[in-house]
Amino acid sequence: MVKNDYNSFFDEADINNNNNNNNNSGNNSSYNNNNNNNNNNSNNNSNMNENSNQYFEDSDGIFLESKDDSSLEINDETAIIHKPYFNDSGFGDINKQKKLTHTRGKHTFTEAEKLKMAKYESLDFPIIDNQIYREHLRKTSKLNHILKTFGKWLICFMIGVLVGITAYVVKQSVEFVNEYKFKKSEHYLETQKKFIGFLVYYGINLLFGISASLVIIPVGQIASGSGIPEVKGYLNGIRIPHSMNVKTLIGKLASLILAYSSGLILGPEGPMIHIGSMLGGAIGQVKSKTLRWYPKIFWKYHNDRDRRDFISTGAAAGVAAAFGAPIGGVLFGYEEASSFWSRQLTWRTFFACLIATFTTNIILQGFSVQIHDYGVLKFGLSNTVLFRYAELIPFAGIGVLGGLLGALFVDLNARLSKWRASFFANKKIYLRVVEVFILVTFTSTLLFCAAAFTPCRDISQAQIPNNNNGSSSSNNGTIIEKPIFIPFFCEKDKSYNQMAGLSFNSLDAGLRLLFSTSPNIFTIPVLIIFTLISFILTIITSGLMLASGLFIPMMLVGASLGRLVGQVIALFFSNIDPCVYAMVGASAMMAGFSRMTISLAIIIVELTEGTQYMLPVILSVMIAKWVGDIFNESIYEHLMEQKCYPFLQSQPIKSFIKLGVVDIMKSDVVTVHEVEKVSRIIEILKSTQHLHHGFPVVERPILNNQRDAYGNLQQYDDETAYSGLILRNQLVVLLYYKIFCHEQPIPQNPRLLGGNANRKYPQRRFGRVTDYGHVQADPRMSYELMTQSLARHFPPIDKMNITQDEIDNMYIDLRPYMNLSSIVANETYSYSETYQLFRTMGLRHLPVLNKRSEVVGIVSRKDLL
Amino acid sequence: MVKNDYNSFFDEADINNNNNNNNNSGNNSSYNNNNNNNNNNSNNNSNMNENSNQYFEDSDGIFLESKDDSSLEINDETAIIHKPYFNDSGFGDINKQKKLTHTRGKHTFTEAEKLKMAKYESLDFPIIDNQIYREHLRKTSKLNHILKTFGKWLICFMIGVLVGITAYVVKQSVEFVNEYKFKKSEHYLETQKKFIGFLVYYGINLLFGISASLVIIPVGQIASGSGIPEVKGYLNGIRIPHSMNVKTLIGKLASLILAYSSGLILGPEGPMIHIGSMLGGAIGQVKSKTLRWYPKIFWKYHNDRDRRDFISTGAAAGVAAAFGAPIGGVLFGYEEASSFWSRQLTWRTFFACLIATFTTNIILQGFSVQIHDYGVLKFGLSNTVLFRYAELIPFAGIGVLGGLLGALFVDLNARLSKWRASFFANKKIYLRVVEVFILVTFTSTLLFCAAAFTPCRDISQAQIPNNNNGSSSSNNGTIIEKPIFIPFFCEKDKSYNQMAGLSFNSLDAGLRLLFSTSPNIFTIPVLIIFTLISFILTIITSGLMLASGLFIPMMLVGASLGRLVGQVIALFFSNIDPCVYAMVGASAMMAGFSRMTISLAIIIVELTEGTQYMLPVILSVMIAKWVGDIFNESIYEHLMEQKCYPFLQSQPIKSFIKLGVVDIMKSDVVTVHEVEKVSRIIEILKSTQHLHHGFPVVERPILNNQRDAYGNLQQYDDETAYSGLILRNQLVVLLYYKIFCHEQPIPQNPRLLGGNANRKYPQRRFGRVTDYGHVQADPRMSYELMTQSLARHFPPIDKMNITQDEIDNMYIDLRPYMNLSSIVANETYSYSETYQLFRTMGLRHLPVLNKRSEVVGIVSRKDLL
Repeated sequence: MVKNDYNSFFDEADINNNNNNNNNSGNNSSYNNNNNNNNNNSNNNSNMNENSNQYFEDSDGIFLESKDDSSLEINDETAIIHKPYFNDSGFGDINKQKKLTHTRGKHTFTEAEKLKMAKYESLDFPIIDNQIYREHLRKTSKLNHILKTFGKWLICFMIGVLVGITAYVVKQSVEFVNEYKFKKSEHYLETQKKFIGFLVYYGINLLFGISASLVIIPVGQIASGSGIPEVKGYLNGIRIPHSMNVKTLIGKLASLILAYSSGLILGPEGPMIHIGSMLGGAIGQVKSKTLRWYPKIFWKYHNDRDRRDFISTGAAAGVAAAFGAPIGGVLFGYEEASSFWSRQLTWRTFFACLIATFTTNIILQGFSVQIHDYGVLKFGLSNTVLFRYAELIPFAGIGVLGGLLGALFVDLNARLSKWRASFFANKKIYLRVVEVFILVTFTSTLLFCAAAFTPCRDISQAQIPNNNNGSSSSNNGTIIEKPIFIPFFCEKDKSYNQMAGLSFNSLDAGLRLLFSTSPNIFTIPVLIIFTLISFILTIITSGLMLASGLFIPMMLVGASLGRLVGQVIALFFSNIDPCVYAMVGASAMMAGFSRMTISLAIIIVELTEGTQYMLPVILSVMIAKWVGDIFNESIYEHLMEQKCYPFLQSQPIKSFIKLGVVDIMKSDVVTVHEVEKVSRIIEILKSTQHLHHGFPVVERPILNNQRDAYGNLQQYDDETAYSGLILRNQLVVLLYYKIFCHEQPIPQNPRLLGGNANRKYPQRRFGRVTDYGHVQADPRMSYELMTQSLARHFPPIDKMNITQDEIDNMYIDLRPYMNLSSIVANETYSYSETYQLFRTMGLRHLPVLNKRSEVVGIVSRKDLL
Repeated sequence: MVKNDYNSFFDEADINNNNNNNNNSGNNSSYNNNNNNNNNNSNNNSNMNENSNQYFEDSDGIFLESKDDSSLEINDETAIIHKPYFNDSGFGDINKQKKLTHTRGKHTFTEAEKLKMAKYESLDFPIIDNQIYREHLRKTSKLNHILKTFGKWLICFMIGVLVGITAYVVKQSVEFVNEYKFKKSEHYLETQKKFIGFLVYYGINLLFGISASLVIIPVGQIASGSGIPEVKGYLNGIRIPHSMNVKTLIGKLASLILAYSSGLILGPEGPMIHIGSMLGGAIGQVKSKTLRWYPKIFWKYHNDRDRRDFISTGAAAGVAAAFGAPIGGVLFGYEEASSFWSRQLTWRTFFACLIATFTTNIILQGFSVQIHDYGVLKFGLSNTVLFRYAELIPFAGIGVLGGLLGALFVDLNARLSKWRASFFANKKIYLRVVEVFILVTFTSTLLFCAAAFTPCRDISQAQIPNNNNGSSSSNNGTIIEKPIFIPFFCEKDKSYNQMAGLSFNSLDAGLRLLFSTSPNIFTIPVLIIFTLISFILTIITSGLMLASGLFIPMMLVGASLGRLVGQVIALFFSNIDPCVYAMVGASAMMAGFSRMTISLAIIIVELTEGTQYMLPVILSVMIAKWVGDIFNESIYEHLMEQKCYPFLQSQPIKSFIKLGVVDIMKSDVVTVHEVEKVSRIIEILKSTQHLHHGFPVVERPILNNQRDAYGNLQQYDDETAYSGLILRNQLVVLLYYKIFCHEQPIPQNPRLLGGNANRKYPQRRFGRVTDYGHVQADPRMSYELMTQSLARHFPPIDKMNITQDEIDNMYIDLRPYMNLSSIVANETYSYSETYQLFRTMGLRHLPVLNKRSEVVGIVSRKDLL
């Protein structure tokens, strides 16, 4: 058993601390109960293993990269359970005496899902406030502080520019393809070569659809979908493998451009958000593993905390550039994407969003052109159309509808995702391309046929607003667009095909038609059919193996629905403008599936420039959110749940609320001593790999020489109080650079050193922050080197050329490197307070101390779920 | 000396804990150094006292209520220094060994200012997670949780409605007075009775100005000014006396309506924000001390934490109603007003803002009228006017100007406030009314004369936009307002007085003229003069003893400046529309003095409905903020500094960054035992009054029976580990309800109770949260009673009818009531991390523990400054 190995190794290696060893063996014996439990459980586990293994691989096929060796992890399972060390993985939960029901929202995580969850490490958001950092702070001048702040603004500027350029590239390429496609196809339709027209349309769609799907294969599944769950997860503190890679960035960008040109019902906003975050994450940390190029200019930002902020900024800039909504972008970052947000971040993000919008604009329109619309989408809602208060009732009704349909969408799409996960799990990846092939065929045929079976309509019937306003406005440069009619089979300039305007058109153009101020441009049956078609297509399209977003499709569904409601009401009442209903419907539908509120309202208003419709938009958004929340959570929460991301919501889980921290913590903690043998550190690192990433540092047992009640001399005090926290990465860096020392003398119990024996708190070794004096940090390991090293990858320990002599005889003094300001919990804490502390402070590890400051447990992210 | 009293009392009262007493005397002796320091310091202090006393009284006259007995506190100073207990006041800093320089921004708090600061207690934002709360949680069903959440939404709804109605009342009353005033006055002017016209105008102004000032006197100075510093301070966790009173609410509302009608250059938004927060704070806690009416419906929200949230919501609703900007309101709440914000709060606030806007609208316009503008202000910027990219350069220039002038404003106004503080300090309060009298006279005369000396101008010269757009738009109900020309002395309908449109007009109307699309409505000299006049008047008006806000005046100054810049540029380039410049100028000026960013941009856009000008607005706002930040902080920070509010910024103070928690903490802590004598509790409460509001609870010394190295039997272990935190209020409630018990047996050291002596963490008394069993909470004190009691006021301890027998022989078991999840710091923490923990978690007390879990210090708000 691994455990015995560990013990014998320990006995052999750590002779001076034999009292401590006794302690440990004492612990071991008292932990035997646990171990027995484990052994008992292991049968259950291995029974369950077959099922869970199945499930595990199933769901893995979809959401994680196929090359992840999930089966390998599963095989490790039994081994892991026998390990004596506390483990950071989901397995810890199996060890718990109490079988807790793990729920989030209405979902209960099964053991199999917890296995998947174990894959995801957490990010290190807390600042490592150790002695070398404090010495570094001491040395840094005010100028350095200002430079650091300035650097952040500079990076945000670069994020803005890059995201802006990317948005431009996406927009232009897609527009180019769509224009070519529809022009070419219409050309054949006009000449009544209907079938060739369809073939051209379908062929181009198929080409781009399949390509969009194919580029995902080399990059990995992480590049497919919208990427918002990944961004949310990362910003919550989950290290999702490859989610912020340059490779993923390129793959996602390519797939987005291709997919958005494929005629499928999907939008560019979700992927743009992911692309924005990847750019944000990349800029501060420009480096290349293959070129061994680690530039030092931005080394200060090489930590998870600053990276998180840049990624937040990038995500916001993505929204800003995609929608041309700078403030909407900031609010999206705050409300939806981020879990940690500060005022400073608001300002920097605001700046980046401004720059992103600005950049897209300048490239799109040149310097001399007047600015009107920014961003990918543009609508021209006239300001002249208003509404009455009584209309707030139908608007509220649309809100309810949006909430219901949104919840339905979430439910169906989540089920479909689950089905996809289990269906494609063990199949070849090319089957997923076949799925795209089928979907493109279905979509193209359905949309084309819908248009083909719709009769022509005279243009004069589509009553164009008869005030002289529309035309006069355009004189001045405002484009209150006249609807562009698509003839399809009909006679050009005389009649038009209503359905083709929606289905045989780019999605933006369709949306613009739905927002059109001409009240009779569509008939009610066409709107009913299109609402249905687009809703169904959106449900089945989202989840395909290509980059796709949901915002535009859901806006389309909502706008169509809203216009439908408006036109139905217009049958009974006069002076109803269906375009306002379309706008309200789009907002309600978006709120229904995403549950955003304030950011959504602002995005809609910035997009349509309809400030005067703020009230109905807000009303419908709020109602849709309430209605939707009755049934389920937002689509992103559901996707994150399916992908088993250990996401921490802002509020603690309701069903745990009566527990205490001792009920959820892992009590088998591996601690290290302040001055620890190299051999023990190597042993710990090897045996807790992938399981354990933070180790509480405890004091060495101190000379005591007290007699207990029975008169026996106790040479060492067995209380080893908590001193600080050290991360696995830090230990690896220390090993790599061989920051070794010789054995340090064990300090005497200060109570015995004369002086006032009754003094309440004897000054221990480095109580005072201001006098570091007594611990001499190794000059080879500066703060700068440590920070840079933590962002790098190191070879495995076996290849580090550490000699046997060093392993056996050398020590590492951890005191200058451990986090002195690590937050700890008392064992009296409740679960809720622990959760709040963990979530608010962005912790990764929370050691639990008893009343003697001894470490009795540790809480990490997955214990809270 | 008080100290000796305490000790003798202690010896007599606490016989069982004599070992502990020894400890204390040990402490005392080791603290002698400190005391000596204090004695040495006391000379300095008394020297300084004369100056500080002077200063203290001076500044007090303005910002605090005159009835506060500041002189009494000063006299206490020396006494306080000698007190042996740790004190929660600013005095603690005098005791510190290291003389720290206390800075915030560029300001250093003097000892005198720290004295003033000591007046302000902190709010208790942390949830008191004690045993009775946990038992209460156990009992509450899911329905109760839902009801509690629903109650919050309900209260937010009520806040929205009430704030909306209040905004309507303010708007209507002021409009009524202004209309009457200007109509009447104009009537005389038209008939060439110029002097009578002026007298009418001046008389009405004077009447309202003086009244606005007089209503402040009975209410207290807290009702004057904008109230934003008070709201910010309260939401940061500072209990500012009377700042959220019903009395203050009524006084402020009356003063606002009167002052806003007085022709002074002031706005209603700041006071509306304060009124909104007061309403928010009041609704959840409806009660009346005089009527002894404490309704129980909302008892669950009777805590500082929920109240804080309602106050945030109220402040946001105030902005929303005042500006008709629901999203601007939410963002104002987030960015400027609040220090603690959550997503749930965003949603509820959003809802309240929606309701507030909606309510104002419905009352203003009725149900059937079409909605166009909401809120107090309305502007009709046409959508047809656009700008070129090159114009972003002058926009940026306006941003710089706005930043510079904003910083200048902050500097001058802050100096003036200081001067006012010292000048009026020892004078009669009626002098402040005289000040208002002088100011009204000066303002009325200056504004009237400015108009009177401006020559008439032919209406035809004010080129009305010659496109047919303006007129055609108004056909459809949009009011792109034609400027309303004020003839003043000139011939009606033929010529008009440019200056009178700005100076002899309500501020909103003036603003609307400045935003007018007619390019030549003003000449450049008029704009120059008006910018100067309004800037100077705004500086001297803000700080008068009446309710006044700065938003509208600063917008006016900015709009005038921006239009000026626009018209100057229009001399050289064609196609320049000065109304856009006015809008940009207003934004820049607002950002320059308030340093708001995103909320400001949204407010401007919601106000002017100029979504298409988002880019220039954001640009100028960002630049103005940057430029202003070079020179000083926002006006609110400066005012808070002058009022000595111990405000915690979101970032730790730079100059402290190299300190540790041990450098800032107060090390003379008063702790209580888990089961404490009534006599000791009364003694503590009496002797630490106004100084100390939270007491760490420590374990009682436990039976040890170990021998130390010299063979002496130690009957009690002198380690008294930290158990929890109890608040002064809680102790008072326990005393009032006489939750007494008899002496509890002192538990044995578990290490001696047999069992596994090597077990690492013996289970202490109530380690496990899940088994409360062993501590029987007194059935008389339920969670409900405790919560309700904490919101009430109790008589002084002497009047509580506690018998001498109870004092001498009874104990209070604090274990069921102390906060078990109180966050603690280790003594190794750095200042920055302590600050972040304190600020992020909204703490009031942060006990500092050493490595034996003994309390070695405590950090409270003022230690961080």
